[in-house]
Amino acid sequence: MRLAELSERSGVSTATIKYYLREGLLPPGRQVNTTTAEYEEEHLRRLRLVRAMIQVGRVPVAKVREVLGHVDDDSLGRSIRLGAALWALPQVPEPDEDDDYVQAAHQEVAGLLDRLGWQNAKLLATVSPAYRSLVLAVAAFRRIGYGWGAEQLAPYAELMHRTAVLDLDFMEAYPSEAERVEFAILGAILNEPLLRALHRLAQEEETTRRYGFE
Amino acid sequence: MRLAELSERSGVSTATIKYYLREGLLPPGRQVNTTTAEYEEEHLRRLRLVRAMIQVGRVPVAKVREVLGHVDDDSLGRSIRLGAALWALPQVPEPDEDDDYVQAAHQEVAGLLDRLGWQNAKLLATVSPAYRSLVLAVAAFRRIGYGWGAEQLAPYAELMHRTAVLDLDFMEAYPSEAERVEFAILGAILNEPLLRALHRLAQEEETTRRYGFE
Repeated sequence: MRLAELSERSGVSTATIKYYLREGLLPPGRQVNTTTAEYEEEHLRRLRLVRAMIQVGRVPVAKVREVLGHVDDDSLGRSIRLGAALWALPQVPEPDEDDDYVQAAHQEVAGLLDRLGWQNAKLLATVSPAYRSLVLAVAAFRRIGYGWGAEQLAPYAELMHRTAVLDLDFMEAYPSEAERVEFAILGAILNEPLLRALHRLAQEEETTRRYGFE
Repeated sequence: MRLAELSERSGVSTATIKYYLREGLLPPGRQVNTTTAEYEEEHLRRLRLVRAMIQVGRVPVAKVREVLGHVDDDSLGRSIRLGAALWALPQVPEPDEDDDYVQAAHQEVAGLLDRLGWQNAKLLATVSPAYRSLVLAVAAFRRIGYGWGAEQLAPYAELMHRTAVLDLDFMEAYPSEAERVEFAILGAILNEPLLRALHRLAQEEETTRRYGFE
């Protein structure tokens, strides 16, 4: 397809597409003559991925380039490709390891992983941004006086594990490896608002079931 | 306790506590003499709630005052108090109802609620920010080419309902109504980072279980 059709089908303006091409976020089309290039379905898919990261995920252009570098690196295994791509997305700050609440949170999170039998997550603890986010979230709870630990977190973690199983089952249903990796990244960006909205709506449903509408 | 102890136990500076008092976010202490006031445990609890909303939830001071007004309104039933307080928290923009993707998303979300039997959530559809967030999230998925609808959302919604049941069970374990309402608000602010971190960690665990560490 030509640039105009790529723009129409993606909903991205031709000026923005040209900017993405210059920045290397989109591979060049096949040059038909000096002024015209031909684009394929994979350009459309890549364009949607780039736009979701920039517009929905508010990922900076340099980060998008880094994520795509991992996505396109065929020399990496799937876990590493997914991990590297997801880890390049914006993350939480480092926990302050001198803080008493952070130290207590580390203990509780380690206890949680043992209790759940999440041995792989435990091996990734020192490198995983998700692990650090969890420590920070538990420390924030404890700092305001809620002594949440492994016991309270375990039932939530079990439900989130079942959610992750759904995520990966959906991902595996896509026929090509390129589509699977793209879905994983889009999922990380778009699933959060979706799950948050479903969770809040479920809270409203359950609250009114228990206490009525008053 | 005196102001100095309130400051030490809450980790909030005396200057900030005085600011909260002036802004009406914290009720005045019992005046012992012209320069000294005495504060109770409920001041400490309220201070933690205010700080969590402002520092963790980044809720503006005027909104905090509005939320607390609902929390303290004994004339309201529990569902209304919880709903009003949570609905005062920062929310998503209004969906553009002329957008084709938004209209399709409305259909799918309505179908989802029927399928799940969430009749209360359906009754709240026109007023609930959670419902609007869900429509926007589904529309965002559809806009980039993933035709997600009631069928794909249902298993996620079931898991989020079980999460909401846990939330309310934890809330009901608190002895006083004031503590229960505070926990509900803190949960809405602090649970999101916690669930997101657990979800990402579960994805890492499940990914490496399926594909190894390469």
